[in-house]
Amino acid sequence: MSREETRVLLERLEKLETKTHNKDFLLTWKHSRDELEAVLTTAELLENLWRANVDARVFRGGLAVSLFRDKSTRTRFSFASATSLLGMSLMDLDETKSQVAHGETVRETANMISFLTEVIGIRDDMFLGEGHTYMAEVAEAVDWGFEQGVLPQRPAIINLQCDQDHPTQSLCDLLHLKLTYGSLEALRGKKIAMTWAYSPSYGKPLSVAQGIMNLMSRFGMEVVLAHPEGYDVIPEHLDIAGGFARESGGSFKVVNDMAEAFRDADIVYPKSWAPYTVMEERTRLLRGGEAKKLDELEKRALANNATHKDWECTEKLMQLTKGGKGLYMHCLPADITDVSCPAGEVAKSVFERYRQPTYHEAEHKLYVIAAMMMLTRFAKPFEVLKQVVERKLPRRWE
Amino acid sequence: MSREETRVLLERLEKLETKTHNKDFLLTWKHSRDELEAVLTTAELLENLWRANVDARVFRGGLAVSLFRDKSTRTRFSFASATSLLGMSLMDLDETKSQVAHGETVRETANMISFLTEVIGIRDDMFLGEGHTYMAEVAEAVDWGFEQGVLPQRPAIINLQCDQDHPTQSLCDLLHLKLTYGSLEALRGKKIAMTWAYSPSYGKPLSVAQGIMNLMSRFGMEVVLAHPEGYDVIPEHLDIAGGFARESGGSFKVVNDMAEAFRDADIVYPKSWAPYTVMEERTRLLRGGEAKKLDELEKRALANNATHKDWECTEKLMQLTKGGKGLYMHCLPADITDVSCPAGEVAKSVFERYRQPTYHEAEHKLYVIAAMMMLTRFAKPFEVLKQVVERKLPRRWE
Amino acid sequence: MSREETRVLLERLEKLETKTHNKDFLLTWKHSRDELEAVLTTAELLENLWRANVDARVFRGGLAVSLFRDKSTRTRFSFASATSLLGMSLMDLDETKSQVAHGETVRETANMISFLTEVIGIRDDMFLGEGHTYMAEVAEAVDWGFEQGVLPQRPAIINLQCDQDHPTQSLCDLLHLKLTYGSLEALRGKKIAMTWAYSPSYGKPLSVAQGIMNLMSRFGMEVVLAHPEGYDVIPEHLDIAGGFARESGGSFKVVNDMAEAFRDADIVYPKSWAPYTVMEERTRLLRGGEAKKLDELEKRALANNATHKDWECTEKLMQLTKGGKGLYMHCLPADITDVSCPAGEVAKSVFERYRQPTYHEAEHKLYVIAAMMMLTRFAKPFEVLKQVVERKLPRRWE
Repeated sequence: MSREETRVLLERLEKLETKTHNKDFLLTWKHSRDELEAVLTTAELLENLWRANVDARVFRGGLAVSLFRDKSTRTRFSFASATSLLGMSLMDLDETKSQVAHGETVRETANMISFLTEVIGIRDDMFLGEGHTYMAEVAEAVDWGFEQGVLPQRPAIINLQCDQDHPTQSLCDLLHLKLTYGSLEALRGKKIAMTWAYSPSYGKPLSVAQGIMNLMSRFGMEVVLAHPEGYDVIPEHLDIAGGFARESGGSFKVVNDMAEAFRDADIVYPKSWAPYTVMEERTRLLRGGEAKKLDELEKRALANNATHKDWECTEKLMQLTKGGKGLYMHCLPADITDVSCPAGEVAKSVFERYRQPTYHEAEHKLYVIAAMMMLTRFAKPFEVLKQVVERKLPRRWE
Repeated sequence: MSREETRVLLERLEKLETKTHNKDFLLTWKHSRDELEAVLTTAELLENLWRANVDARVFRGGLAVSLFRDKSTRTRFSFASATSLLGMSLMDLDETKSQVAHGETVRETANMISFLTEVIGIRDDMFLGEGHTYMAEVAEAVDWGFEQGVLPQRPAIINLQCDQDHPTQSLCDLLHLKLTYGSLEALRGKKIAMTWAYSPSYGKPLSVAQGIMNLMSRFGMEVVLAHPEGYDVIPEHLDIAGGFARESGGSFKVVNDMAEAFRDADIVYPKSWAPYTVMEERTRLLRGGEAKKLDELEKRALANNATHKDWECTEKLMQLTKGGKGLYMHCLPADITDVSCPAGEVAKSVFERYRQPTYHEAEHKLYVIAAMMMLTRFAKPFEVLKQVVERKLPRRWE
Repeated sequence: MSREETRVLLERLEKLETKTHNKDFLLTWKHSRDELEAVLTTAELLENLWRANVDARVFRGGLAVSLFRDKSTRTRFSFASATSLLGMSLMDLDETKSQVAHGETVRETANMISFLTEVIGIRDDMFLGEGHTYMAEVAEAVDWGFEQGVLPQRPAIINLQCDQDHPTQSLCDLLHLKLTYGSLEALRGKKIAMTWAYSPSYGKPLSVAQGIMNLMSRFGMEVVLAHPEGYDVIPEHLDIAGGFARESGGSFKVVNDMAEAFRDADIVYPKSWAPYTVMEERTRLLRGGEAKKLDELEKRALANNATHKDWECTEKLMQLTKGGKGLYMHCLPADITDVSCPAGEVAKSVFERYRQPTYHEAEHKLYVIAAMMMLTRFAKPFEVLKQVVERKLPRRWE
């Protein structure tokens, strides 16, 4: 890390106005632009510090709790890594080993796991209308606990993917773009195509698509959401993205043609999701425990998906992007044709060409999570980071 | 934390005579009154230090091992929190992932997991006659290992609930009472009703009831154990509680009437358990793998329970307590009527009124566990804590 | 730890030539004798430091990742202990909770879990021809990630048992011998019998037998591999052990008679394994999911095993060893006759006599793993350890 780079990042951070202390990080659209930029700046700083072998453990013990209600490799390891980076102990709340089912209320569990807890990271993305609601409920529970003096500190809830948003992903994607193009300012006017792509599975959350369109539209980008007819995202998000686009001087539109979205795009993000109507029905059937109808729904949805196998990010489509050199992005794992499945979201050669950049993209997530931890837990994250930089204690001994 | 409070607690701790170094914490009744008070004093000190943002990590690495043979949220997180608070690494012994079933003896497993281990916390409360026996066996195994030079240190076994006692619970309950009434001395003459209550489940351990009556009787309290006929605790515990009551100048009696127990009580602790005769039969059938007879036993026990639905902590019963303002206690999670079940241990309005105090009660457990760790691992816990207080390193950076 | 002992070990370490920095530890026979001795020396040093209550945490955070594709108690705890000893955070990659099955490639998973990772420990010993191959694939994946700048550091892969070798076991066994006989030089000319023994199970890996014969043959020992006809190890290993024996001035031979192997042996290591031909067939059937044929194979293999119940380490056989006082070794857990099974690898009285030494043997493993971590992660482990010794910070407060 050059001293100069560090100095610039610290100076920038000092200037940003944030009201995140003792708050949560649930939906990017509930945060100010300054707050989002503070996440990116802090993440970049922490990433530089790690690469410069600087110990950034600003906690001396205390818990970071994770709760995964869906499978996860990347986000699980990102959360664990951020926890270690900042000096906390990780504790996973495995609901199968707890008494949660034993009639406990959310309020009770949330408080019982929080006596020494700084952060609770939650992934809850399976059921439409539930993930965000659950996180908000946990937030309310710890608010109560803190006000009542039950909790010595009020842990921050960090959304590790819900039914609405996937902020640690979209912000790591944004950091990737910032580093690729040099600055947030450089993103102005760039066209990004967030497009649906075919996958031989069904029921993938909508949160990445919604997260990307609602975030990128704030930075003056030309955001295009593309999907086959019927693969709509939750309607209210169209308004959110549209509103941000108007505010930021960018644009937002929805098209039903992958080629149109790719044409002259600077960036493409082809990724499968389930139509929100399917997710609604699925949620209803899962709640009702209607196994047979769920099977039928899956079959119907997969059959419908299969009529859109042409929604694949091929070399031919990539040729349509700006100068044929558009940046391919993905949150990983991608469904790669002839690698992970016979037909998928992206052609093998395209993915291979962008493997390295997508891995870099993924690397940022742990620092984004660590940044959210710092911004929610410290009244003056800038002051704390300054001390870290000045102390410069080697992380791995030298 | 006021300096004054800290000074008083440290001074008190210095005066207490403890022989807990390199020993275990299995049953409160095997410890002297000074030792029990040392647990409370150390716990209170550690709780104050955390709230004052003081780093109390007196270990620099080393393992704290947990072994849960039953589901747990609170105790699991309390143990993990205590581990982080003191600077150790947590390692959960998940018997399904180990070779324990592979013909290993307890002696072998106990030693194999202990080369770097300071503490082993065990929950084993399912089978009557087994939990405590198992812990004693583990203790003997590490005694042997330490004597033989196999183990560089002799880890302390901490009982996280067995078939006999639940000392981390009863001591956190006692700390709750001490803080509520101002001192241990203030508990003298206070009436506490440890009473059975209806729950739509069966097979709950007896250890909370036994733990409470055997502990509170040592502090001059008027202890009343109440349960329907046939819901007896293990008979030998009646002698233990009775003996302590005589020694301490308190009293101990058993009644079969909830109202009688509540009348003029300062404190009520209504909580379900299974009659020890049912637990004995259940243990026998489980050992024999007699699935059908187990089903019958469960049905019979539940039907019997159902004849005692009037054993519920209602507002009406609460009116009988001292000035109608008796303190409601519970180890959580409680079976709350109309919240977690149609009919349970406590009425919703009663629980709501005491939700905050019961959560506070629960908070102490992690510090009680941490106190047990300190008292068993350090020859002079007072000296170590004095250093912590004097160093006053911020736990979360400032 | 005497200062003198420490000085001698440090001096020895300084003189050894190692090229392990940023490399892996997969197979002992791919490492130079100096490198193997460096593992032993570092392990001994770390063991002494722990016993002298010296904090040896040379990392300030960062992850050590474990991946167990087979059950494990000892190695799991050894890896966790080494991680805590050196100051890292443990993260277990539980493949059932990850998206690994979700079409991810090894390259991708390996990189995604490694952004903050110093070490990846892997146990993969179930399938012949797969374990080592998988580890090499992970190694290649992180090589790529590091070269591409995706990973800020290149994590070391440590073999926690594969189909070929079990280096953390064989090196902890070698350290046990070194400490028992005083020096590596003292092992020259000593006869060690690595012999098959009867067990009522089947499918045990060959890696311990292969690991022992390929390691001990490098130190001038008289290595005898003994097994019933048909219980051969993988043939290529006969060449490896034979070659090392010639180089080191020791010897290596295979016999089909347990008594012959025991006669005048200084050390005996009786342990069951499955013939490599059975393992090959089993691997093929497992891959093909042929449940019925697997059952038949198991029955056939167990029946065949049962014809060799006389391959048991009895008192009578022990009488044949050098002066009747040969050293019994085992990687544990042993199948002990009348303890863990009606007929097993070793008689109860023999095992009881050697219980303490085998536990000591097991203790070394965590330090061997920690030594491998240090030798692969630091360019100059000697310099780092010197600082640890000089700082002498108490591990547990005093």
